[in-house]
Amino acid sequence: YNPDQWQHAPEILERDIELMKQAGVTSASIGIFAWTSLEPKEDHYEFAWLDAVMDRFAKEGMYVFLATPSGSKPMWLSEKYPEVRRVNKDGIRDASGWRHNHCLSSPIYRKKTRAINAQLAQRYKNHPALALWHVGNEYSGECHCELCRSAFQDWLKKRYKTLDALNSAWWSSFWNHTFTNWGQIQTTDASIDALQLDWLRFINDQHLSFMLNEMVPLRERTPDVPCMTNFMGTHEGTNYWQWAEHLDIIANDLYPMPADCADSWRYSIQSDFIHSLMRGMSGGKPWMLLECSPSSVNWGKINKLKRPNAHRQEVLQAVANGANTIHYFQWRKGRGGFEKYHGAVVDHEGSNQSRVFQDCAAIGRELNQLSAVYGADCPQAEVAMLYDWESRWALNASQGPKVLAGGGPFKGDLYTKLCFDHYEALTCCGINVDQVSTKSEFSAYKVLILPALYLVTQEMADRIYQFTQGGGQVVATCLTGYVDLSNCCWLGGFPGAGLAELFGIWNEELDNLDDEERVKVMGQFSGFARDIAERIHLRGAKSIAQAGSEFYAGHPLITEHKCEVGHAFYLAARFESAVLVDFYQSLATRFDLSCTLDADLPLGVVFRRRESADKKYGFLFNYTQETHSIDLKEHSFLDFAVSSNCTGKLELKPYETRVLQI
Amino acid sequence: YNPDQWQHAPEILERDIELMKQAGVTSASIGIFAWTSLEPKEDHYEFAWLDAVMDRFAKEGMYVFLATPSGSKPMWLSEKYPEVRRVNKDGIRDASGWRHNHCLSSPIYRKKTRAINAQLAQRYKNHPALALWHVGNEYSGECHCELCRSAFQDWLKKRYKTLDALNSAWWSSFWNHTFTNWGQIQTTDASIDALQLDWLRFINDQHLSFMLNEMVPLRERTPDVPCMTNFMGTHEGTNYWQWAEHLDIIANDLYPMPADCADSWRYSIQSDFIHSLMRGMSGGKPWMLLECSPSSVNWGKINKLKRPNAHRQEVLQAVANGANTIHYFQWRKGRGGFEKYHGAVVDHEGSNQSRVFQDCAAIGRELNQLSAVYGADCPQAEVAMLYDWESRWALNASQGPKVLAGGGPFKGDLYTKLCFDHYEALTCCGINVDQVSTKSEFSAYKVLILPALYLVTQEMADRIYQFTQGGGQVVATCLTGYVDLSNCCWLGGFPGAGLAELFGIWNEELDNLDDEERVKVMGQFSGFARDIAERIHLRGAKSIAQAGSEFYAGHPLITEHKCEVGHAFYLAARFESAVLVDFYQSLATRFDLSCTLDADLPLGVVFRRRESADKKYGFLFNYTQETHSIDLKEHSFLDFAVSSNCTGKLELKPYETRVLQI
Amino acid sequence: YNPDQWQHAPEILERDIELMKQAGVTSASIGIFAWTSLEPKEDHYEFAWLDAVMDRFAKEGMYVFLATPSGSKPMWLSEKYPEVRRVNKDGIRDASGWRHNHCLSSPIYRKKTRAINAQLAQRYKNHPALALWHVGNEYSGECHCELCRSAFQDWLKKRYKTLDALNSAWWSSFWNHTFTNWGQIQTTDASIDALQLDWLRFINDQHLSFMLNEMVPLRERTPDVPCMTNFMGTHEGTNYWQWAEHLDIIANDLYPMPADCADSWRYSIQSDFIHSLMRGMSGGKPWMLLECSPSSVNWGKINKLKRPNAHRQEVLQAVANGANTIHYFQWRKGRGGFEKYHGAVVDHEGSNQSRVFQDCAAIGRELNQLSAVYGADCPQAEVAMLYDWESRWALNASQGPKVLAGGGPFKGDLYTKLCFDHYEALTCCGINVDQVSTKSEFSAYKVLILPALYLVTQEMADRIYQFTQGGGQVVATCLTGYVDLSNCCWLGGFPGAGLAELFGIWNEELDNLDDEERVKVMGQFSGFARDIAERIHLRGAKSIAQAGSEFYAGHPLITEHKCEVGHAFYLAARFESAVLVDFYQSLATRFDLSCTLDADLPLGVVFRRRESADKKYGFLFNYTQETHSIDLKEHSFLDFAVSSNCTGKLELKPYETRVLQI
Repeated sequence: YNPDQWQHAPEILERDIELMKQAGVTSASIGIFAWTSLEPKEDHYEFAWLDAVMDRFAKEGMYVFLATPSGSKPMWLSEKYPEVRRVNKDGIRDASGWRHNHCLSSPIYRKKTRAINAQLAQRYKNHPALALWHVGNEYSGECHCELCRSAFQDWLKKRYKTLDALNSAWWSSFWNHTFTNWGQIQTTDASIDALQLDWLRFINDQHLSFMLNEMVPLRERTPDVPCMTNFMGTHEGTNYWQWAEHLDIIANDLYPMPADCADSWRYSIQSDFIHSLMRGMSGGKPWMLLECSPSSVNWGKINKLKRPNAHRQEVLQAVANGANTIHYFQWRKGRGGFEKYHGAVVDHEGSNQSRVFQDCAAIGRELNQLSAVYGADCPQAEVAMLYDWESRWALNASQGPKVLAGGGPFKGDLYTKLCFDHYEALTCCGINVDQVSTKSEFSAYKVLILPALYLVTQEMADRIYQFTQGGGQVVATCLTGYVDLSNCCWLGGFPGAGLAELFGIWNEELDNLDDEERVKVMGQFSGFARDIAERIHLRGAKSIAQAGSEFYAGHPLITEHKCEVGHAFYLAARFESAVLVDFYQSLATRFDLSCTLDADLPLGVVFRRRESADKKYGFLFNYTQETHSIDLKEHSFLDFAVSSNCTGKLELKPYETRVLQI
Repeated sequence: YNPDQWQHAPEILERDIELMKQAGVTSASIGIFAWTSLEPKEDHYEFAWLDAVMDRFAKEGMYVFLATPSGSKPMWLSEKYPEVRRVNKDGIRDASGWRHNHCLSSPIYRKKTRAINAQLAQRYKNHPALALWHVGNEYSGECHCELCRSAFQDWLKKRYKTLDALNSAWWSSFWNHTFTNWGQIQTTDASIDALQLDWLRFINDQHLSFMLNEMVPLRERTPDVPCMTNFMGTHEGTNYWQWAEHLDIIANDLYPMPADCADSWRYSIQSDFIHSLMRGMSGGKPWMLLECSPSSVNWGKINKLKRPNAHRQEVLQAVANGANTIHYFQWRKGRGGFEKYHGAVVDHEGSNQSRVFQDCAAIGRELNQLSAVYGADCPQAEVAMLYDWESRWALNASQGPKVLAGGGPFKGDLYTKLCFDHYEALTCCGINVDQVSTKSEFSAYKVLILPALYLVTQEMADRIYQFTQGGGQVVATCLTGYVDLSNCCWLGGFPGAGLAELFGIWNEELDNLDDEERVKVMGQFSGFARDIAERIHLRGAKSIAQAGSEFYAGHPLITEHKCEVGHAFYLAARFESAVLVDFYQSLATRFDLSCTLDADLPLGVVFRRRESADKKYGFLFNYTQETHSIDLKEHSFLDFAVSSNCTGKLELKPYETRVLQI
Repeated sequence: YNPDQWQHAPEILERDIELMKQAGVTSASIGIFAWTSLEPKEDHYEFAWLDAVMDRFAKEGMYVFLATPSGSKPMWLSEKYPEVRRVNKDGIRDASGWRHNHCLSSPIYRKKTRAINAQLAQRYKNHPALALWHVGNEYSGECHCELCRSAFQDWLKKRYKTLDALNSAWWSSFWNHTFTNWGQIQTTDASIDALQLDWLRFINDQHLSFMLNEMVPLRERTPDVPCMTNFMGTHEGTNYWQWAEHLDIIANDLYPMPADCADSWRYSIQSDFIHSLMRGMSGGKPWMLLECSPSSVNWGKINKLKRPNAHRQEVLQAVANGANTIHYFQWRKGRGGFEKYHGAVVDHEGSNQSRVFQDCAAIGRELNQLSAVYGADCPQAEVAMLYDWESRWALNASQGPKVLAGGGPFKGDLYTKLCFDHYEALTCCGINVDQVSTKSEFSAYKVLILPALYLVTQEMADRIYQFTQGGGQVVATCLTGYVDLSNCCWLGGFPGAGLAELFGIWNEELDNLDDEERVKVMGQFSGFARDIAERIHLRGAKSIAQAGSEFYAGHPLITEHKCEVGHAFYLAARFESAVLVDFYQSLATRFDLSCTLDADLPLGVVFRRRESADKKYGFLFNYTQETHSIDLKEHSFLDFAVSSNCTGKLELKPYETRVLQI
C-alpha cells in the first residue's frame, strides 16, 4: 500500500480506508519505497503524512506492517555517495534509478539505513497501528565493487584462515589459479567452481548481515514488535533456511503466472511446493503470503488475466499450507511508473465495481469466515524432503551436468526441478511431505527424500546413515554425493562420503540426454527417464528397475539396499512423473504411509488438511480446467462457503476449491 | 552517388555520366559521406573534385542534391575532440568509425557542421547544378554523455519549470524516485515510464535542433534552394510530423525486403502504408523516394535478389502515392566497405549489361513517359487515419501490454502494427485513406480512424468529440485513451479524457493472449481476435460483435455509439484481417464511402489514382505471385507502357503493374 | 597430465605411473598450467616437484612433452602488471582468472614467458625424459588494449608504408573513413571490411610472433628437441599453414561431440576432414593427436557419453590419417575447477575398473600392435583441395553473402562448410584428397578443387591457369574470385583476376536463399542447390547443369570450360550432397581417378590407407549406427585385432573399425 504516492490527494486515503473495509482488509504494508518522502533531504525527516496514515489505520482498528525503506535509495543519497550504487561484473557502476541496487557492503549505506530505521522505530514504537516490521524488500542481486571484493576477501580469510587452505579447498592449481596473496582474489572467476560457490555463500551472508544491521535499531526500540522480510520462494541467491532463524515470522511473495491449459495443474502444484517450503521454514507457526497479485502482473512476457476461480484458489492454497495472512501487491494502481499496470485491488478506475475488487472482497469475506481454521495446524507428515541451497549452488557452479531449458518458477534450475518432480509425484499419490533443511531433525520421519544431494559433508552422510539405523527409509536420486563443502569431487567412487556403502552402488558415469531423448525404464516400474541418467553398478543393492534402451540397457536405474534397519533407494536418473508415482505408491503400501484423503482423486485434484486439537479442516482443490466429480464414499463434510453438507458425489468446477470441515 | 570514392580514377566520372544518361538519371545526391574529402585537415578545404563533378553535371543539364556531410565525422575530428563521439547506456564512449554516431549535443560538433555547411553554401550558392540541399542523413540513435544528460535536464527544466511539477508529472514517488535536484536525473532509468517518454521526445527534439542548426548557413546563403533530409518511414526515434514543418520537401528511404511467397502482397501494402504516410506529411505536394535499392540489400539476414517486375512495381507504388522523384541508393558499388555488395545501378562489373542496369534504364524511360502524371495529385480521401508518434512512444514505454514478435518494417511495434491492420483492411476494401497527425485538420473527413490512441490529451479528446458533432464517424481500437501527456493513466475508467462517454463504454481490463491463442468473434462480424483483447462494458453503446470464447465470452468486442450527429465505434481487440475488412465494408455501405475502382479486385491487387484538373491516372498493382485476370467491366483505359487500350479482361502477371489513363 | 595439481599427494604420482603402464601410455604433456607451481613468486623458481616427475618418467623409460606455461598467467603477474591482462572491444580490461587471456603484445609478458621458458630449457635440456617442447596452449583470442592497437598500427605501417596506400587499399573513403594519421586507426571498426581482414591477419601474426618469442630460449638451449604447439583444427583466428612452417611437428586437439543418430556418419567425416587438414600441414610426416577426450567433455551444451566403439574409432581415424601419436586430455580428473567433469582416463573413483580406463587400455594395446603401421605413409592423392584462411577471413569480413546457422565443428562458417561439402562428396566416392595451401605445389595433382576461393591474387590466378596448361582439371565453386588482397572487389565481372576467362563465365549476381528454400538442379546432374546460388552467364563455357526453378530457371549452375590442356569447372551454388557425389563420380570416370578400395561401400562406410615400401594397411570405418555387411569380392585382408583373414562378406557393427593388412 503506497499512500506516499497519493499525498497530493488526501481524499484518496479516505477512499482507501472505505474500500479496505469493504474488501475486508485489516492490515497493510506501508512505506516500502517511501524513503524520500520520509527524509527528503539528508537528516531532515518528515513524518506528517505517515502519522496521518498510521493514525487513520489505528482509528479503524487496522494494522500497519511498517516497512524499512532500504529497497530503493533516495536520489540524493545515490548522488552524494556514489559508493552506495552497485557495480556490475564489467566494473560499471549503476546509474541511480530502478530499485534493489544498493551496494551490499557500503558502510555509508548501512549507516544511513540504520539511521532512518531508528527514526521510524523511535517515532512509532508505541503507535497502536504498528503490528510488524517489514524489513527491506526482496533482498537480491550482487555487487562487484571494490568494497564488496574486499569484504569477500575478508569473508574468505575468516573461513579458510590461510591462503594454503583456500588454494587447497578451491583446487586452484587448476589452470594455474593459485593465489599468492588475498588481494588477488576476484569476484568473477567462473573457472573456479569453489570460488563461485563461496561467492554465492558470501552474497547470501552479505544480504543477511545487511538485514540484521537494519534490524538493530528496531530490536532495540521495539523488542516486542515482530520482524519479517518478504522471501521470494526458491530464489537462488538466498538460503532462506538461514534467514528463517533470524525472523519472527515467515513471509513470502508468490506470483504464479496465469495459465489455462491441459497441464495447468502442474503449475498449481509448483505454487504448492513453494508454500510447502515456507511451511517448513516457519516450523509449524503460521506464515504470511505477503505479496500476490489479485490479477495479472505487468512484467511477464505475456500478461494474461487470471481466470475465474483462479485467484481464490491461489489464496486458499496458501491457507491450506499454513498461511494465516494474505496480502496483495498492490492495493491501488499508481498512475505512473514501471508497475502502473500491475494487478491491484483498486484499479485506476477507482470504484468498487471491478471484477478484481469484487473477487477480493468476496475472498476477504471468506477468509473472515475461516477464522476457526487459523487455529489449526498443518499435520506433521510422515515423509520429509530435503531442500538444500548448498547442493543447488554447488551443482549450478559445476560445469557438466545438463542445464535445463527455462520457464516457470524454477526456470532452468535442475536442482529445484528434481526436487519438484518428487514433490509432485507424492502429491499425486496423496502423500503429505514436510520440507526440511540439513539442520532439521528428521529422525521422526518414516521416509527421507534427498533429491540431488549433490554436496554432502561427512557429517550429513553420517546423519543419513543413522536415520536408516533408526529404521528410516532413504530415497536418493541421481547427482547425489558428488562433491564436498568446497565443491571438490569426492574420490573413491560416487556417491561419496560413505554413501556408496549406504546405497550399495557405484555410480560410474553420468549421461546427459538431448531434450527429446528418453531412456526406457523396465522392471518393477516402467516408463521413461530423461535429461540425466547415471550408469551405476550394484555393490550390494538390488536393481528394481533397469534401463531398457541405450548402450547401458540392462543397467540398474532404481536400486534398493537393505541398510541397517531401514532401506536405501537410489534413483539413478531424472524420471518422468509416471515412474515416480508408481515408485512412491509402492513405498506407501510397503511402509504404510497415510493418505491425505481416503478417496480416488483424479490427476490435478489435491486435498490438504489443517488440524487443531478438536477440529479438522480440508481443502479440496481442482487444479484442472475440467469439471471433476469426486466420490466421497462414506465421508460427510461441511462446506464452509455454502454451509451445507457434502456427501456422495462432489462436483468440482474448473479451478474450483472447497473448504471443508471434516 | 559517391564520386568521392573514385577520385583516383577520373575516367569513372565520365563513364558514370554516360551511364546515367543511358539510364535516364537526371539528378543525384552527392557528398553525403565526403567530409574528409572536402576538409582533409581542420579548416583546410578542398573542393576541386566536387567542382569537377558539379560542373560536369551542369554541363549535361543534370542536377545535384548537395549533401551536408554530418552523417559521418572525419577521423581527425573524432581524434581531436572526443566529445563529438557518442556514449552508450553503459557510459562507454564510442571509438571512431562506423557512422551516425556523433553526440547530439556537442557544441563543437554543431560548430563544425555549420562551418563546413557554410563553406559548401558559399561556394555553390550560384552553381547551376545545385537543385536541393540534402541535409544530414537518416538522423537516428541516441547519446548518453554528460553533455546530452545536461541538455536533457535543461530540456526538462524548460518543460516543467519546477521539480515539483516534474515529480508530479512523472509520478516519481513510485519506487522512491523523487528528484530533489535537477542534476540527479539520469537518461536511462527504465522504471520511470514518463522519463522514458520524455527522453524519446528529447532525442527527437535534439536531432531536429541539430538539423535546424545545420540549415542556418544554408538558409542564409541560399534562401531559394529547398532543403530536405531523408526520412526512414516509421522510424521510432523521430516524430516526422514535426520535422515536416521545417523542410521544403519530404524525402524518404525505403528498402522493402524481397519476398516471394503466398502473402508477399501484405509486404507490398506495408510499403504502400509508408508511402501513404509520406503523402500525408507532404501535404499534397510531391515528395521524393530518395533511397531504394535497385536489387538486394547487403545488410539483411538473408539478402535475396529482387524478382522480375518487383523493382518496377516498388517504384511505381511510390509514384502512385505522389512521389515525383525516385532515387537509388546506390549508383555504383564501391570496391570496399560495409556496403560493397549493396544493390546498385552499376555493378562492380561496370557495364550497362547487367539485369539491374537494364531494369533501371527501362524504368528511367518509363518515368520519363509518365511526365504528365507528375502534374496530377493524389485525390483527397474520405477516410483519415491518425499516425501518432506520441501514442507509440508512450505505449512502448509502458510495461504490460504485449510486445509482439519482430520482423518486417514494423518489427515488434504493436502500435504501428495496429495502424497497419486498419490500413490493410481499408486497402483490401478499395478505400483510400489519408494519414494525419494530431495537429491536422480532420473535420472534412467522413471517417476518422484512431488506432491505439493510447496517449490522449483533453484537447485532442475534445476535438474528436467536435468531429462527431459535425457528423463524423470515429473508429477507435483497443489501447485508446489510457494515458495523459506524462504517460500517467487516466483515472475514472478507460478510455480517459471523456472518451468513455463518447464511445459509451467502460474498458475494465486488458487480456494479453499467447501468440497462437485466438478469441472467437461473433455477432455482426465474425472471425478472430488475437494478441490483445479488452473486457469492456456497455455504458450507452450497443455491442455489434462479441467474444465467442474465453471467460469473457458474450462480452462486447465491437461497439457502436450514436454520439451527437456522428457515430463512435470501439474495436476492443486486435482483430484478424477478415473482421476488419467486413467492418469497413459495412462502414463503406452505410456511410457511402467511394471505392478507388469500380471492379472486383482479388486480394493483393490494388488500385491507386492521381488526378489533375483534366486527367485521371490509375495504377493497378498485382502484389501477388499469381497471375490474375481483372474484369474491367465497362471501363476502357489507356495503358501507358504499351500505348494501347485496355477493356474487358485485363491480365496481370505476378508482380505486374499497369499505369493507366482513365 | 597435471601432476602439479596433486603435489600434496605424492602417492598419486606412483599410482599414475602404474596406471599409465597398464594403459600403455608412454608419454605425457606436463606443465601446461603450472607456472605458479614453477615460479610461485617473481623470479623465485621451484622445480623439485617437476624434477620428481621427470625423473620418475625417465626411470620408466617414458617421455615427457614439456609445456611452456604461457597459457595461463600467474595471479601475482596479473596483479603486479595490469598490462598483461587483455582488454575487450568495449575497452574493459579483463580481471585475472580463466585462461588464454594475456595481452598479445605486452612486452612484459613476452619477457616473462621467455624467462620461465629459459629456466625450463636450462634445467631439463639434458634430461632423458624430455622428448618434445609443447609451446603454449591453444593460442587464440584477441586484445584491444592500447599496446595492441599501437602494434596493429605499426603492423599496418610496415604493410602499407603510406597512409595513402592504406586508404586506397582499404577503400576508406567509404562512409568518410579516410585516415589522416596512423594514430586514428582503431581495432574495432566493423564497417571497413579491409580493416577487419587485416585485423585478423594481425592477430594471427601476433599470436605466431608470441609463440616464436617463446621458442627463442628453447631453440638456443635445446636445438635438437622438437617444438610443437596444439592446433585447434579449423580455428578461425589462426592460419595454421603459416604456423606449420615454424614447428617441427604438427599436433592437433579434436573433440568430436558424441552423436548417435541417422547421420552421425557426417559428423565422423567432419573429424576426418580436420585430420586430413593436419595431414596436409605435416607434409607427409607423422603428426600427433594431442588432445582428445576418452569420453564426454564437460563444456558442451549437452554432454553425452561416448557410445561403445566410438572412441576407438576416433583414435584409429587419426591414425588412418597419418597420426602416430595419440594423447588424451586429460589423464586424471582434478577434484575441482571448471573441467573437473571433463572426460579423463582415470576417474575420480581412481581405479582401473572404469569403462573408460578399460577402453583406453585396450586402445593402448592395439596402438602398440599397430607399430608396423607407423612406418607407412598416407599415399599421395590425385586430388588436391585448397583450404585458405585468407579467403575465409575475407568472406567473413564481407557483408552480404548468407551467414549459415551454427552447430558442429564448423559452426556457421560458410567457407569451411563449402570446403567440407566437397570433401564429404569425395569421401563418399572413395576418392582420396590432399588438402593444400596457396603456397603448396599442386602441379602434380590431376584435379585441383578450389572451394569458395573468394580472395584471389593475380599470382594465384596465374598459377591456376598454369595448372590447366599442364593438363590439370580445376573445380571452382560459388564465391570464387570476388576480392583482392585488401578485400576490395575485382572490377570487370566475377570471377576476377582473369578467372572469368579461365572458367568461361560471367557471374553476374548472387542470390541468398532462405534456409528451407531449394533451387532445383537439372541437366547432367540433378538434385538441389541451397543457401547460395549465382546467376552466371556462359562466356565460352558450356552448361552441364541448370537451375530448374526460380526466376533464373534455365541459367547454368554447373559449367565446364576447356582451357588449355585441362578443364575448368564452375559450380555456381551450394549443392546438396547428391549433386556433388554425382559430379565427382563423373570426374572420377572421365579422368581416371582411383578409389581407395575396389568395393561397394554404403554411405557412411569409409576406407583409408597407409602404405610403406612393402606393406599396405587399410582402415575400414563404419561411421553409422547400423550394422553393414561389406562384400570384399576377391580381396583377402589380415585383420590385426583378431589376427585372422577377412574374405568374402565382412560384417561391421555400429561404429566398428577394422584395421587390415592388405
